[in-house]
Amino acid sequence: MSSNATDMLTVTQAAEARRSIRKYEPAPIPRADLEEILRVTGLAPSPWNLQPWRFVIVEDADTKAKLQAAAYGQPQVGAAPAVIVMYSDMTNTLETIEETIHPGMPDHAKAATDIRTTFANMSENDRHAWGFAEANIALGFLLLTAQAHGYSTSSMLGFVPDTVKTLLDLPADARIPALIAIGRGAEDGFPHHRHGLERIARFV
Amino acid sequence: MSSNATDMLTVTQAAEARRSIRKYEPAPIPRADLEEILRVTGLAPSPWNLQPWRFVIVEDADTKAKLQAAAYGQPQVGAAPAVIVMYSDMTNTLETIEETIHPGMPDHAKAATDIRTTFANMSENDRHAWGFAEANIALGFLLLTAQAHGYSTSSMLGFVPDTVKTLLDLPADARIPALIAIGRGAEDGFPHHRHGLERIARFV
Repeated sequence: MSSNATDMLTVTQAAEARRSIRKYEPAPIPRADLEEILRVTGLAPSPWNLQPWRFVIVEDADTKAKLQAAAYGQPQVGAAPAVIVMYSDMTNTLETIEETIHPGMPDHAKAATDIRTTFANMSENDRHAWGFAEANIALGFLLLTAQAHGYSTSSMLGFVPDTVKTLLDLPADARIPALIAIGRGAEDGFPHHRHGLERIARFV
Repeated sequence: MSSNATDMLTVTQAAEARRSIRKYEPAPIPRADLEEILRVTGLAPSPWNLQPWRFVIVEDADTKAKLQAAAYGQPQVGAAPAVIVMYSDMTNTLETIEETIHPGMPDHAKAATDIRTTFANMSENDRHAWGFAEANIALGFLLLTAQAHGYSTSSMLGFVPDTVKTLLDLPADARIPALIAIGRGAEDGFPHHRHGLERIARFV
């Protein structure tokens, strides 16, 4: 299978084409495509450029079977050629701030101290919730980017986090926004049925 | 000013072009463009199709000045022709489940009961955190969609939530992922400086 690591859809086309897909063609995804999708995902906005998101891409059949068990047996985990486990890791993020501070910042040492102080003043839960929220924004990027490259996805919230962490050797304090099944879709999925804008938006 | 409510960028182009922009041209955004950006945002994935996100689009100068004060005076709130206050509202979402259940579902009454039971078994905080996470995914959609339509954004986390809620008459239990300044950018912004993929992704 050849790689096609350029996308083909506008943002609107990708949003309209995206469905939650549970059936997939079994062919593996070219590594270059997965890498490109994750590279673009990593361009999501990030206050202080912290980029707290991390990814484990599960393609190994045995590991995928164990992941499926941790996801209450959801069939798309087994059916998709790859499942991306996305998580936020604020501990690693804050330990390695020096890697992420933007070169355009005038005083890197002061910036690192200021950022660490800001997070030290939060509760541990709030600190991890902060990274989790940022990772969810990036998840929006991931789903659109995959679709634009011709890949369907299913973003799953049903799983046992501690089992997933143990299986993949993730940090105990990682937060997992979703498991994302990804591959060439083998079903159409449900058409969108969404609120009209007048129901959810107000102009003042 | 004419509206141009079709987007022009692929997902990758939009992700690469997006920067956090603090200076804007003052011209108002055509209503059709704002509506189209929010329509596409509303296509974000949503378990059970619940769509817990809501939007107040602030264009009125006086209200925008008060919003800027609630956002610690951040200049982009005043500079942008519009600021989108995005929030999740799980109370309204759960009260009106019947509006969102997909027509393809076989038994709407049972589905509504099952969903309400699931959320009733969560703590109040977890329930609102769930809606907040979903809204953050949609925020990723919003930022890419705006960029694809030629609009720059700045997604701001620095604000006093209770003051924003009072100003805009939002529900007390709303959760606000961000205030989003939007308009035609009048600066270039910082170029991206991101982790290499080998730093944040692992294949198994």
